Amino acid sequence: IAMELDGERAVVRPLLTDLYQATMALGYWRAGQACEAAEFELFFRQCPFGGSFALAAGLRDCMCFLRSFRLQDADVQFLASVLPPDTDPGFFEHLRALDCSGVTVRALPEGSLAFPGVPLLQVSGPLLLVQLLETPLLCLVSYASLVATNAARLRLIAGPDKRLLEMGLRRAQGPDGGFTASVYSYLGGFNSSSNTLAGQLRGVPVAGTLAHSFVTSFSGSEVPPDPMLAPASSEGPAVDLTASVNLWLKRVCSYLGLEVQEPHPGERAAFVAYALAFPRAFQGLLDSYSVRRSGLPNFLSVALALGELGYRAVGVRLDSGDLLQQAQEIRGIFRAVGAQFQVPWLESVPIAVSNNIDEKELTRLSQKGSEVNVIGIGTSVVTCPKQPSMGCVYKLVSVGGRPRMKLTEDPEKQTLPGSKAAFRFLGSDGSFLLDLLQLAEEPPPKAGQELRVWPRGAREPCTVKPAQVEPLLRLCLQQGQLCEPLPTLDESRTFAQQSLSRLNPAHKQLQNPTVYPVALSEKLRALVDSLSAGGPL
Amino acid sequence: IAMELDGERAVVRPLLTDLYQATMALGYWRAGQACEAAEFELFFRQCPFGGSFALAAGLRDCMCFLRSFRLQDADVQFLASVLPPDTDPGFFEHLRALDCSGVTVRALPEGSLAFPGVPLLQVSGPLLLVQLLETPLLCLVSYASLVATNAARLRLIAGPDKRLLEMGLRRAQGPDGGFTASVYSYLGGFNSSSNTLAGQLRGVPVAGTLAHSFVTSFSGSEVPPDPMLAPASSEGPAVDLTASVNLWLKRVCSYLGLEVQEPHPGERAAFVAYALAFPRAFQGLLDSYSVRRSGLPNFLSVALALGELGYRAVGVRLDSGDLLQQAQEIRGIFRAVGAQFQVPWLESVPIAVSNNIDEKELTRLSQKGSEVNVIGIGTSVVTCPKQPSMGCVYKLVSVGGRPRMKLTEDPEKQTLPGSKAAFRFLGSDGSFLLDLLQLAEEPPPKAGQELRVWPRGAREPCTVKPAQVEPLLRLCLQQGQLCEPLPTLDESRTFAQQSLSRLNPAHKQLQNPTVYPVALSEKLRALVDSLSAGGPL
Repeated sequence: IAMELDGERAVVRPLLTDLYQATMALGYWRAGQACEAAEFELFFRQCPFGGSFALAAGLRDCMCFLRSFRLQDADVQFLASVLPPDTDPGFFEHLRALDCSGVTVRALPEGSLAFPGVPLLQVSGPLLLVQLLETPLLCLVSYASLVATNAARLRLIAGPDKRLLEMGLRRAQGPDGGFTASVYSYLGGFNSSSNTLAGQLRGVPVAGTLAHSFVTSFSGSEVPPDPMLAPASSEGPAVDLTASVNLWLKRVCSYLGLEVQEPHPGERAAFVAYALAFPRAFQGLLDSYSVRRSGLPNFLSVALALGELGYRAVGVRLDSGDLLQQAQEIRGIFRAVGAQFQVPWLESVPIAVSNNIDEKELTRLSQKGSEVNVIGIGTSVVTCPKQPSMGCVYKLVSVGGRPRMKLTEDPEKQTLPGSKAAFRFLGSDGSFLLDLLQLAEEPPPKAGQELRVWPRGAREPCTVKPAQVEPLLRLCLQQGQLCEPLPTLDESRTFAQQSLSRLNPAHKQLQNPTVYPVALSEKLRALVDSLSAGGPL
Repeated sequence: IAMELDGERAVVRPLLTDLYQATMALGYWRAGQACEAAEFELFFRQCPFGGSFALAAGLRDCMCFLRSFRLQDADVQFLASVLPPDTDPGFFEHLRALDCSGVTVRALPEGSLAFPGVPLLQVSGPLLLVQLLETPLLCLVSYASLVATNAARLRLIAGPDKRLLEMGLRRAQGPDGGFTASVYSYLGGFNSSSNTLAGQLRGVPVAGTLAHSFVTSFSGSEVPPDPMLAPASSEGPAVDLTASVNLWLKRVCSYLGLEVQEPHPGERAAFVAYALAFPRAFQGLLDSYSVRRSGLPNFLSVALALGELGYRAVGVRLDSGDLLQQAQEIRGIFRAVGAQFQVPWLESVPIAVSNNIDEKELTRLSQKGSEVNVIGIGTSVVTCPKQPSMGCVYKLVSVGGRPRMKLTEDPEKQTLPGSKAAFRFLGSDGSFLLDLLQLAEEPPPKAGQELRVWPRGAREPCTVKPAQVEPLLRLCLQQGQLCEPLPTLDESRTFAQQSLSRLNPAHKQLQNPTVYPVALSEKLRALVDSLSAGGPL
């Protein structure tokens, strides 16, 4: 268990936190409260993007952070430089000795469906320490969950068959934003990422071929040091690919009604160079000059020359213009050219598209009859433009075993007090009916038993009888020790898709979905009422 | 120079790149083009947020990345695992030997005003290598520049006197997104950040006091181990702060017409605990229960008790409700209470506010007569919701000394070919008139000389006579060596504010600003025309 968490990234240091965590730490320490047993819950108040679900993600990163949490001398010295000069040195000794050996975490497993108010993490331990953990935990969970949820929505739009490629590294909030986006958009349902580091460190399938710069870097006057290519079967002589392509160019141009001078020679040289490097994975980027008059005939010439040697091109990519319509036209040309030259595989060469694809454009590209096969999405998966932040919060729910509640005059910002358990009620078909929050000390609800609960936002209780009951929160870290191996990214990805398949379609609608009910037990509801009325804290 | 760049962050590894950079690398290598001299430009096509300027930022991070760029064995092995199994081992040897000793970078200095099409970076070196650098450089520059620009806009709205605190770490795209946001929102004009790591590693002033959890963690039954506080002057006996606060509570409640039981005892205990830890920097967070009936009288009691000992409270914070109106009311109460108890400093205690403050709310809070002094902004500075990505691109402009251009049928995506120089024309008052792009080989324009130029987007040339001419791009890295010490963050921050002060207000308007002109020299314009018409590449 130790091994699998090590070495993944070195970003998250204990000082990656808000200064007020440190000033509060001193306040707790001075008040003799530093070691009081406390519990915080990390949750969100509203599902992102106007939807009705979210995917919980980031747990692995949290575990990695907690297990290595330790203030270094330089960290403590920096804090001393920004805290009052007469601060008791005992406080800094206390900070130096901190680690997570007294911290226990329960959590929604990575990839779980999460709903408002249900804790993604419950963190308990000494008050000073678990307070200090707030900002890094929020930072690790919020964006991971946001981008996983965003990816899941895009997957719902695209349907199961389109291949979705995340390619937003350059549009992210710096290096780690890009890394997090790549990992968690895969978890949320994408097929692959362009981000090589996400492949290296987390096993995300990586994909990529060539950019316009590659194409435009060639003028056509270059002479490849070795233009010879052996057949795929290795049987038979190697051929001069450039020469073979030039022969095919004449046939293709003649069939398409183009002059052989029209297709750009530099683009063709680039395609040949790429084909020599990747004969089994040749892809053409068609729109550096003109798709119809240059990119397409050049691609076809190279693909057909490769085909003679037994290699099949793996795709074309479009990065500008009307992607849906061009895909249609290109598929038509592939069919016609494939028939003309008796190359049947040509008609099913995958067509990949990219260029600022958002939910709306993805809907169009995923419509029935679309000839698009692969969709590269950057900005709109990574930046989550509909809602660029998840709004997770981390709230104190108990101190010294006594429930705590933030009352405030803004009812939206009130918290649910007390250490809690959470359960999911399922119908007889395994679909999700409702999530229940209750006090930790209450007996768990039982399948087949009727229960009166208070749905959040409702003024009246209702009665539910679940066919099955699943506990939602798993013990992950107990007194600093990992309790079980963390699931792999692929396991979490599968779990997320399975969970989504059990959610009623009404909750999965992307616009105006039916709200998924989260309810409080009668006891929890009574505690909220009592504390709201100013009862004893 | 070496020292100052080291150890800042370990995030940016060479594999933090798109896979297609590696596949293209193999393509270049196979085509014998790997070591061709190439030049790329990094620029944006449109100013973010509908504005008319951007601030260039991220250069220091780029230099740090370039100087340490080196593929490790594990990196090369990973690439080998995703490239064709029969790839020539010579390619991987080539990768292992790569470093930036052949790379030269010219750039807009950190904090410069940047406009569409003017390169933020010009990167030249061996084609394969400078292609590989694309994604990490984009990743490092785009978001840094976006958030610096966003911060500059927020500063323009707030005016020079409000203190702006960035506090968005928990809303960022993971750890490094938060770090980048903290550093570059400071560069763009914020006063401080909550992010302790940005203070430790980059010297950003850090700020923070206490959260609701600190307040709600106290019930009021706690007994501080040592409630005694000595006077600020250290002359005279220590007093029991709790007892003194309780005496003041009676006087304050009586004056405000409240029962002494109304203010929450836990909140008061929290304030006392904080005051004991920070007697010289006491701040009250007022809205955990009720501002008027609890937070305010509790704050006043503690502030007045501290005042008797010679300490002055440094502020209050509001985090919900109508912030402008509450600030008005609180200032009124401070005045009245200050007069009543003859504590004149009370009326000028700074009022800090936070809670999802965006451009619109900031405009309201910054209006004339506002009593708000400090404004904490998280989500809307960090996530840049108006435009969460800068859209920078990195385009090939020359290979082997010959200009390159992406033509494409989408005119917006066409590039400006050739190695270029850039100049800013200034009026006699030092204000910025126009930026000029010309070919590197052209003689620099001279002050006082009339010149015919082609403003981008215009169909006709125009004539300009600058009073002064400033070259825009500085040589930063020459054959892998830093050419001069990089400016400090504070120097860049000052430079950004100075630059903004020289920009005509018409270009600084946040809605519908006048577009700042960027023009091409006649020679550059002629080259574009010639290449667009299919002239020799």
